[in-house]
Amino acid sequence: MTKVVILGSTGSIGTQALEVAAALPHEIQVVGLTAGSNAELFTQQIDRWHPEVAVLADESAYRTVRANIRPGRTHLLCGMEGICAAATWPGADLVLGAMLGAAGLRPTLAAIQAGKDVAIANKETLVAAGQIVMAAVQEHGVKLFPVDSEHSALEQCLRGEDPATIASLTITASGGPFWERTREEIAAALPAQALKHPTWTMGRKITIDSATLMNKGLEMIEAHWLFGVPMERIDVVVHRQSVVHSMVTFTDGSVKAQLGVPDMRLPIQSGLLRGRRAAGGAPQLNLATMGPLTFAAPDPERFPSIDLARAAMTAGGTTPAALNAANEVAVEAFLAGRTNFYGMTEAIIHALERHENMARPDITEILAADSSARRAVAEFVSGCSGKALYEVA
Amino acid sequence: MTKVVILGSTGSIGTQALEVAAALPHEIQVVGLTAGSNAELFTQQIDRWHPEVAVLADESAYRTVRANIRPGRTHLLCGMEGICAAATWPGADLVLGAMLGAAGLRPTLAAIQAGKDVAIANKETLVAAGQIVMAAVQEHGVKLFPVDSEHSALEQCLRGEDPATIASLTITASGGPFWERTREEIAAALPAQALKHPTWTMGRKITIDSATLMNKGLEMIEAHWLFGVPMERIDVVVHRQSVVHSMVTFTDGSVKAQLGVPDMRLPIQSGLLRGRRAAGGAPQLNLATMGPLTFAAPDPERFPSIDLARAAMTAGGTTPAALNAANEVAVEAFLAGRTNFYGMTEAIIHALERHENMARPDITEILAADSSARRAVAEFVSGCSGKALYEVA
Repeated sequence: MTKVVILGSTGSIGTQALEVAAALPHEIQVVGLTAGSNAELFTQQIDRWHPEVAVLADESAYRTVRANIRPGRTHLLCGMEGICAAATWPGADLVLGAMLGAAGLRPTLAAIQAGKDVAIANKETLVAAGQIVMAAVQEHGVKLFPVDSEHSALEQCLRGEDPATIASLTITASGGPFWERTREEIAAALPAQALKHPTWTMGRKITIDSATLMNKGLEMIEAHWLFGVPMERIDVVVHRQSVVHSMVTFTDGSVKAQLGVPDMRLPIQSGLLRGRRAAGGAPQLNLATMGPLTFAAPDPERFPSIDLARAAMTAGGTTPAALNAANEVAVEAFLAGRTNFYGMTEAIIHALERHENMARPDITEILAADSSARRAVAEFVSGCSGKALYEVA
Repeated sequence: MTKVVILGSTGSIGTQALEVAAALPHEIQVVGLTAGSNAELFTQQIDRWHPEVAVLADESAYRTVRANIRPGRTHLLCGMEGICAAATWPGADLVLGAMLGAAGLRPTLAAIQAGKDVAIANKETLVAAGQIVMAAVQEHGVKLFPVDSEHSALEQCLRGEDPATIASLTITASGGPFWERTREEIAAALPAQALKHPTWTMGRKITIDSATLMNKGLEMIEAHWLFGVPMERIDVVVHRQSVVHSMVTFTDGSVKAQLGVPDMRLPIQSGLLRGRRAAGGAPQLNLATMGPLTFAAPDPERFPSIDLARAAMTAGGTTPAALNAANEVAVEAFLAGRTNFYGMTEAIIHALERHENMARPDITEILAADSSARRAVAEFVSGCSGKALYEVA
């Protein structure tokens, strides 16, 4: 029985993690939940799971929940201090980091420092502070289990293999909603179109990242830190069917791939069970009844994000943190109708050009890089236009 | 440095194994070679490799080679006793079993009993006597490394995994030269057409097995013994591109596959290095520049061999040995123009119908089952027609 705290329980990963926990009652016990501001769903989750600790980041949502839940054994807390208390909860064995964006950094580090294993769905934490997170993992002797389907695939392919025999890692990309579109068509895309992902159902931020392929750029950086493979030996291949979740090529020319139906519950379950396999609710893959599997090289003209991410990681230091923060604000601006599709790329480039890199940053310096990149994008976006570029539904 | 004896050095696998050894001079030392009757090539191999022991099965070929090689340190021997001496050679660490057909059984068992690890390319040995071979492996504490590309793929996918979490094994099949043909067209196929394999370059016997898909039937039985998975959880999928070499489905719904360019040197190298990876001469796979990968269920109407093999393995005892022997003679008869394509299937069914199964056979009983199945096919084939059905080139 693994005792689990879920950071970000009302999000896409969090709710699916609770489905996995419900399907494996003898394997997983939920001892903690944290969320942002979704008071209604969080109240239901507390009623269903009776966690030892439950935390809302938002204070007004906290008050709503406090007024609504029945008295019980759950400690209800509030704010980032509360989230860090949940992440270091004495009764927990494993923390699922499924918060959105760079906000996951502090509680994830706190969990590691408290000796918890971490199932990491929050790629921004590794992108922004991979060096610090991996050093903490080493120092505190805990284990990190990937929850992204791509990194879960890589972890599965690397089981029983000598890391010295890795030739390269290949991350598969669905290509997103715009893979078949011209650059002109993509340039004119509205948020509603970008939010229509062909295969995966995910949160809004990650769906836009998937349309720009920035998702893949961030995943390359994440893979670099998780598996210790140099950036120049990590690449991306577009695979529209999202059946092959990623691949490892070894020095002898052999390639191993992990496949499955596109269902996030599979990698979430693997993360929650610390890599152990258990019969779960995931549907079986039947290749014989499927159409063909296709693979294509990414196109840097239409999708410049992969090159941007590769350059940021190669620069190292605080640059990936700046990239990640700039991207978060750029995506928000796009969703709010304050910039167009390629405006996101321009805003990120603007922020990176103004970024002063620091080679071996501490957390304060990473957070400073994060803040200044956010400001740079906000300025760039507001400088472009005084009003919304188009109406947002 | 692994000291290797190659049983069957002039065959397709044997010559490629020597290419692998030539590419890895610091990893592999060839201390023994055995062949059937190809005196010319075997003489060249002795000159090139200076093995400690070299053996020809055929006595007249042995005399030719003895007359041709320069005096040296190589012990030149003859016949099955000589082959068994090579298989148990004191200086050897690992024996590559790459002899054709059931003839590989005795020397493979001798090698295991002498405490040698075995890289097994001779699937007939496991098909005929899997129970005995696996018991000997257990008893003598040696390891068996698959060399068939499919079983090498399965072994790689199973590394670091708990065998209890295997849901099923899926062996890929190219479909052979007749996959797109109707049953009528296949029924009229000549040996020269059956010998044109779409992707792999292999020996004649295995190429015909690949046209009938009997190859896959035998591989299912081999996989059953190698990995201890029940026959009903081993299946076949037709994959024309021969890029995915086989797959494992786990209890959680996750699938792992091993891929590579269709080049037998890759699994041969893996077998010779006992699963260790080393940069070899195998070309790299580039999925992004390839056409799509397709998968289809096999067709038991046109290719009844898979069902035949499954039934033989389910019967167990001496039946798989009888199947294998009957198939060998049927393939010879087809290649010699003494039966047509589906005549092979009919001959095998005829032999199996007359076979008296023994549940837990010893080697003598297996060899007896082998002999009587061969006789049954020979009688059936000669009973069909007094003369060749067509001219053979």
